[in-house]
Amino acid sequence: MSVSAGTTRIVAMEGNLNSSSFDMDLRDPNNLNNHLQVQWSDVIGEPESIRSNDCIWNCSYKCYRGTKNCCYQSVTLLFAPLLAFCMGIQFACLAFQHIWCYVPCIRCLKINCSVVRDVTTIILQALCAPWIETCGHCLSRVKVRYQRISDLQEEEDLMTV
Amino acid sequence: MSVSAGTTRIVAMEGNLNSSSFDMDLRDPNNLNNHLQVQWSDVIGEPESIRSNDCIWNCSYKCYRGTKNCCYQSVTLLFAPLLAFCMGIQFACLAFQHIWCYVPCIRCLKINCSVVRDVTTIILQALCAPWIETCGHCLSRVKVRYQRISDLQEEEDLMTV
Amino acid sequence: MSVSAGTTRIVAMEGNLNSSSFDMDLRDPNNLNNHLQVQWSDVIGEPESIRSNDCIWNCSYKCYRGTKNCCYQSVTLLFAPLLAFCMGIQFACLAFQHIWCYVPCIRCLKINCSVVRDVTTIILQALCAPWIETCGHCLSRVKVRYQRISDLQEEEDLMTV
Amino acid sequence: MSVSAGTTRIVAMEGNLNSSSFDMDLRDPNNLNNHLQVQWSDVIGEPESIRSNDCIWNCSYKCYRGTKNCCYQSVTLLFAPLLAFCMGIQFACLAFQHIWCYVPCIRCLKINCSVVRDVTTIILQALCAPWIETCGHCLSRVKVRYQRISDLQEEEDLMTV
Amino acid sequence: MSVSAGTTRIVAMEGNLNSSSFDMDLRDPNNLNNHLQVQWSDVIGEPESIRSNDCIWNCSYKCYRGTKNCCYQSVTLLFAPLLAFCMGIQFACLAFQHIWCYVPCIRCLKINCSVVRDVTTIILQALCAPWIETCGHCLSRVKVRYQRISDLQEEEDLMTV
Amino acid sequence: MSVSAGTTRIVAMEGNLNSSSFDMDLRDPNNLNNHLQVQWSDVIGEPESIRSNDCIWNCSYKCYRGTKNCCYQSVTLLFAPLLAFCMGIQFACLAFQHIWCYVPCIRCLKINCSVVRDVTTIILQALCAPWIETCGHCLSRVKVRYQRISDLQEEEDLMTV
Amino acid sequence: MSVSAGTTRIVAMEGNLNSSSFDMDLRDPNNLNNHLQVQWSDVIGEPESIRSNDCIWNCSYKCYRGTKNCCYQSVTLLFAPLLAFCMGIQFACLAFQHIWCYVPCIRCLKINCSVVRDVTTIILQALCAPWIETCGHCLSRVKVRYQRISDLQEEEDLMTV
Amino acid sequence: MSVSAGTTRIVAMEGNLNSSSFDMDLRDPNNLNNHLQVQWSDVIGEPESIRSNDCIWNCSYKCYRGTKNCCYQSVTLLFAPLLAFCMGIQFACLAFQHIWCYVPCIRCLKINCSVVRDVTTIILQALCAPWIETCGHCLSRVKVRYQRISDLQEEEDLMTV
Amino acid sequence: MSVSAGTTRIVAMEGNLNSSSFDMDLRDPNNLNNHLQVQWSDVIGEPESIRSNDCIWNCSYKCYRGTKNCCYQSVTLLFAPLLAFCMGIQFACLAFQHIWCYVPCIRCLKINCSVVRDVTTIILQALCAPWIETCGHCLSRVKVRYQRISDLQEEEDLMTV
Amino acid sequence: MSVSAGTTRIVAMEGNLNSSSFDMDLRDPNNLNNHLQVQWSDVIGEPESIRSNDCIWNCSYKCYRGTKNCCYQSVTLLFAPLLAFCMGIQFACLAFQHIWCYVPCIRCLKINCSVVRDVTTIILQALCAPWIETCGHCLSRVKVRYQRISDLQEEEDLMTV
Amino acid sequence: MSVSAGTTRIVAMEGNLNSSSFDMDLRDPNNLNNHLQVQWSDVIGEPESIRSNDCIWNCSYKCYRGTKNCCYQSVTLLFAPLLAFCMGIQFACLAFQHIWCYVPCIRCLKINCSVVRDVTTIILQALCAPWIETCGHCLSRVKVRYQRISDLQEEEDLMTV
Repeated sequence: MSVSAGTTRIVAMEGNLNSSSFDMDLRDPNNLNNHLQVQWSDVIGEPESIRSNDCIWNCSYKCYRGTKNCCYQSVTLLFAPLLAFCMGIQFACLAFQHIWCYVPCIRCLKINCSVVRDVTTIILQALCAPWIETCGHCLSRVKVRYQRISDLQEEEDLMTV
Repeated sequence: MSVSAGTTRIVAMEGNLNSSSFDMDLRDPNNLNNHLQVQWSDVIGEPESIRSNDCIWNCSYKCYRGTKNCCYQSVTLLFAPLLAFCMGIQFACLAFQHIWCYVPCIRCLKINCSVVRDVTTIILQALCAPWIETCGHCLSRVKVRYQRISDLQEEEDLMTV
Repeated sequence: MSVSAGTTRIVAMEGNLNSSSFDMDLRDPNNLNNHLQVQWSDVIGEPESIRSNDCIWNCSYKCYRGTKNCCYQSVTLLFAPLLAFCMGIQFACLAFQHIWCYVPCIRCLKINCSVVRDVTTIILQALCAPWIETCGHCLSRVKVRYQRISDLQEEEDLMTV
Repeated sequence: MSVSAGTTRIVAMEGNLNSSSFDMDLRDPNNLNNHLQVQWSDVIGEPESIRSNDCIWNCSYKCYRGTKNCCYQSVTLLFAPLLAFCMGIQFACLAFQHIWCYVPCIRCLKINCSVVRDVTTIILQALCAPWIETCGHCLSRVKVRYQRISDLQEEEDLMTV
Repeated sequence: MSVSAGTTRIVAMEGNLNSSSFDMDLRDPNNLNNHLQVQWSDVIGEPESIRSNDCIWNCSYKCYRGTKNCCYQSVTLLFAPLLAFCMGIQFACLAFQHIWCYVPCIRCLKINCSVVRDVTTIILQALCAPWIETCGHCLSRVKVRYQRISDLQEEEDLMTV
Repeated sequence: MSVSAGTTRIVAMEGNLNSSSFDMDLRDPNNLNNHLQVQWSDVIGEPESIRSNDCIWNCSYKCYRGTKNCCYQSVTLLFAPLLAFCMGIQFACLAFQHIWCYVPCIRCLKINCSVVRDVTTIILQALCAPWIETCGHCLSRVKVRYQRISDLQEEEDLMTV
Repeated sequence: MSVSAGTTRIVAMEGNLNSSSFDMDLRDPNNLNNHLQVQWSDVIGEPESIRSNDCIWNCSYKCYRGTKNCCYQSVTLLFAPLLAFCMGIQFACLAFQHIWCYVPCIRCLKINCSVVRDVTTIILQALCAPWIETCGHCLSRVKVRYQRISDLQEEEDLMTV
Repeated sequence: MSVSAGTTRIVAMEGNLNSSSFDMDLRDPNNLNNHLQVQWSDVIGEPESIRSNDCIWNCSYKCYRGTKNCCYQSVTLLFAPLLAFCMGIQFACLAFQHIWCYVPCIRCLKINCSVVRDVTTIILQALCAPWIETCGHCLSRVKVRYQRISDLQEEEDLMTV
Repeated sequence: MSVSAGTTRIVAMEGNLNSSSFDMDLRDPNNLNNHLQVQWSDVIGEPESIRSNDCIWNCSYKCYRGTKNCCYQSVTLLFAPLLAFCMGIQFACLAFQHIWCYVPCIRCLKINCSVVRDVTTIILQALCAPWIETCGHCLSRVKVRYQRISDLQEEEDLMTV
Repeated sequence: MSVSAGTTRIVAMEGNLNSSSFDMDLRDPNNLNNHLQVQWSDVIGEPESIRSNDCIWNCSYKCYRGTKNCCYQSVTLLFAPLLAFCMGIQFACLAFQHIWCYVPCIRCLKINCSVVRDVTTIILQALCAPWIETCGHCLSRVKVRYQRISDLQEEEDLMTV
Repeated sequence: MSVSAGTTRIVAMEGNLNSSSFDMDLRDPNNLNNHLQVQWSDVIGEPESIRSNDCIWNCSYKCYRGTKNCCYQSVTLLFAPLLAFCMGIQFACLAFQHIWCYVPCIRCLKINCSVVRDVTTIILQALCAPWIETCGHCLSRVKVRYQRISDLQEEEDLMTV
């Protein structure tokens, strides 16, 4: 097989994956932005005890809804594809750095630190652990005696005090 | 489909959603302002032991209710739609910033911090953890002896003290 | 419908609500002033062991009750409706500020703080959490041995000490 | 109905209430002064082991009882109605201040503080809570091992120490 | 009825009460002076191991008993009725002060402090409570793992240490 | 009856009481002096491993017993009745002071302190209690998660450390 | 009966008592000197792993036993009766002081301190107890939530950390 | 067998092992990089309350996916084999150092530290342990008495306080 | 009986006692010197992994055993009886001091300290105990509320944090 | 038997032991180096969301495996036997020092320290232990009263606070 | 019997003892040197992921084993009997010092310290114990009220906060 074939396969596989992650209706399956609560009832509310006029209420609602949708769609029309292009390059470089550089270095660091830890533990067990354990004998002689008192005895106590 | 069709669909969908969130009678479904308790019985009350004259009480009540409603409705008539227009623009910009800028940056930060955390943990496990665990042996020799005392023994105790 | 109709409906609705909150007899349904205990038996009381003359007791009671009621009713006749008028204006302005200004700002603040919190948490999880967890190993080696002592052993203990 | 009718009704109602709170015999239904224990047996007592002469004991008792009752009744004859008149004015003014001034101000304060609290909580949740929770991981690794020791093992312990 | 009749009734009632509190034989029903243990066997005692001569013992006892009774009865003959007269005046004035002055002032203080407390609580709930609760999250991540060790494992532990 | 009769009755009653508290043989019924252990076997003892000659032992015993008894009886012959006379006067004065002076003053103090305590409690409940309770919220969010570990998991732990 | 008879009876009674406390063979019934372990096997012992010659061992034992007994018996022959005589005088004076001086003074002190304690308690209950109890509210809002974790959840925890 | 045969066998054996660890499809069996979440739905999401135009959403998605894949594959084509070569040399040297140098030195260190630890423990047991154990007696006399109170007693408590 | 007879009896009795404490074979019945582990296998041991030549091992063993026994027996031959003689004198004097001087003084001290303790306790109970008990009310208002959380609630908690 | 025979036997015995510890295939029975995880899948991994070309992946794998094996085998060919020779000498000397010098000195130290410990313990028991135990009485009077509150009482509490 | 006979018996007895402690094959019955792990598999190990050539592995093993055994046996041939001779003298002197000097002095010290401890305890019980016990009353008024909360109440709590 040639390189193009491998590329094809990857794209096909990713397509299958994305067919589950890309949906025109459900646009936030991972709940990334569910803190964006910008509907009318999330922003404005009048309690029972005080109310404005009905037409003022209706007019304010339509004014808010129209302004919000127009403004958002015009901004995304200008900037969304451009930002998506930049993010594509950024995350590709990020993935290369992590896969081929950072993770092998972490593996190398793990192997060396394992030896450092063994040496530190052995020396501390010889020099410091006996001191610490000796101090720990301080709590080795705790002795607790407990007793349940009945209600009759309480009254005597109150009379003598 | 054209852009207008997509816009139409969104508006329709939002209309359905809002048909549940926009109601002329129940104007605060999310209880945003239920701390606004401004009815007569929330502000003025006379206990049983002291009471004013009946007509004074009735006159004060009507005076309060009329003033409150007139004042509120005249203010909303002037400012409510204007404020709704401004809020529409504000929340649209806010949503764009969060969806297309902040959340991708957070994703990028998460990936990098994951590596930083692994490196920090590995080094600390090698250099500091043995010291801490050695100090922790101080509590490894606790020994508690307990005993239940009966009531008869208590009396002896009181006699000897 | 016109504006007046909406106003009419609100007033009617509020009238219904207030018909339950406005009552000539039960004037403090929310117990706002039940700390005002100003009856005769809440202020003056004579114990069994010492008592004044009967007519002195009766005269004092009538003197107290008459003075209290006359004084309170004359003061409310002068100031109560005026105070109710001022309160009406005050609470209407208060309601407008909260509904149309403060609560939308709080919504905006909530959305932004949610991002700040995520960033702070991610960075702290990478830089500080490993240090803290390493320190937490100090309590990971607690070992407690316990023993129950019988009464016979206690007596030996008292003899040797 | 006129004002006098309302006044009449209040007085009648209060009369009914006071008919339960005003009693010639039981003069302290709310136990306001049950710390006033001024009877003979609350002040003077002779134990079994030492006793005075019988007539001295009887004479002292009559002297105490007579002096106490005469003195108290002459003082109340002079000052009790005057004090009741002053207290009537005082508690009427106190009730007016609380019902028409203090309680509405507290309602206004409650509404404003509710917003202040929400803002404070949101900001603290974003800026301080992650730091505090990170510090709280210090206690997330507690590990306790416990063991029961029998009596036989104790004797060995005493022999080796 | 006249004043004298009321006085008569009080005295009669008090007489009935005192008929239960005044007794020639049981002179300390409220145990006011049961710390006065001045009998011979409360003051002098000879153990088994050493004893004085019988007549010396008998003579000392009679000397103590006679001196104590004569001395006490002569003193009470002089001062007891005089002291009872003074105490009568003192406790009558004390009762008047408490019933007509102190207790009404305490009622007035209670009503005012109730408002102060509400205001303080509302402000503190808004300004301080969020800080305190945020600090309280420090203890919200406690995690304890526990394990029971058998006796066999203990021996291994002793061998390796 | 005359004073002498009363005196007679007291003496008779006290005689009956003392007939139970005065006994020629059991001279310390209240165990006032059971710390006076002055017998031979409380002072001198020879263990099994070393012993003196028999006649030396016998002679020493008789010498100790004779000296002790003679010395004590001669001293009591001189001073005991004199001391009993002084103690009779002392305890009679003491009883008079307590019965007629101290205990009535304590009753008076109790009545006044009861009011002081109420005032202090009311003011503190208004000014200090809200601050203290706010600080107490610090412990209102404790959350503990616990887990039992089996023996198999412990071995893995030992292998990885 | 004369004084001599009383003396006779005391001596007889003490003789009976001492007949149980004076024994030629068991010379330390109260275990006063059981810390005097001066036998050969309490002082010298050879372990299994190293041993001296048999006759050296035998000779050393006889030398120790003979020296110890001769030395002790000659010293007691000189000083024991003299010391017993001095002790007899000393303990007789001691007993007189305690029986006739110290114990009556303690009784007098007890009666006075009982009043001091009551006064102190009453004043402290009024002035200090409200402050202390107010501070004690700090612990009145403790709230603990606990949760049991299963083993499966632990593995996830280990995977994410 | 010759050296080449041994080499052959090792390669074969490693081939078998790697046939399970090397797979064209599942390229991360040990989950080394599962923090790299760089799909479209991990980076961008629109909540229900605000949505962009459909074609803008579709265009942005395709732009992101294409850019990411092309960029990553061109970078790996240049650097991946070179980095694999360097890592091969690095890990071979690392393995030699650990197998033939570090681990034998750790064994030598373990043997010497075992003696150091025994000496330290013996000296500390003689010089310090008695002091520590003596201090530990401070907790050997704890005595706790506990009592359950019923609800009726609580009400009395509230009345007296 | 004469003195010599007493001496004879003591010696006989002690002989019987010693016949159980003096044994030619078991020379350390009280385990005074079981810390003297000086056999060959307590001093020298070769592990399985390294071994010396058989004849070297055998020769070293015989050399150690012979030297140790000869050296010890020659030293005891010179000094043992002399030391036993000195110890006999020393322990006889020690026994005399304790039996006839120290223990009677301790008895005298006990009797006096018993009075000192009573006086101290009575005064402290009057002056200090009320202060301490007042401070102890600080812990008298502890109130703990606890709640068990199920696993489902935990997942929500993890999602919101 | 001669020396050579002993040597022969040791070698044979060690050969038997090593026949279990020396194996051509399982070369690390004691898991000394299981931290050396240097296979391909331990170092490099690509997540599902981003993948390189297939031939690049395959080429990188072969490059890593070949380089690692060649490099390690050439280094061991040069240095392994030389290092094994040096280690043989080192561990033989180490074993001689421990068996014939250090362990006998530790035995000697143990015997002396046992006496030091006994002396220290005896003196501390006499001089310090009584002080420590006296301080320990501070915890001997703990008294805890506990009470369970029902839900109804809680609501009252909320109403009064 | 002569000295030589005693010597003979001791030697015979020790011979019997040593016949159990001296064994040509099991040369370390008390596990004195089980920290000396110097076999090939305790020092060198190759993990599965990387392996050297077979003949290099075999050659290194033989080189290590031969060097170690030759070196150790030549050193012991020179120094072992000499060291055993010195140790024999040293431990004989050590045993004499402990048996005849140190242990009798410890017995003498024990007897004297027993008296010192009694005197110290008696004085402390009189002078210090009352102070300490008075301070201990601070914990005698602990009162804990606890309450179980259901899940429904928790939701209300979250709504009000």
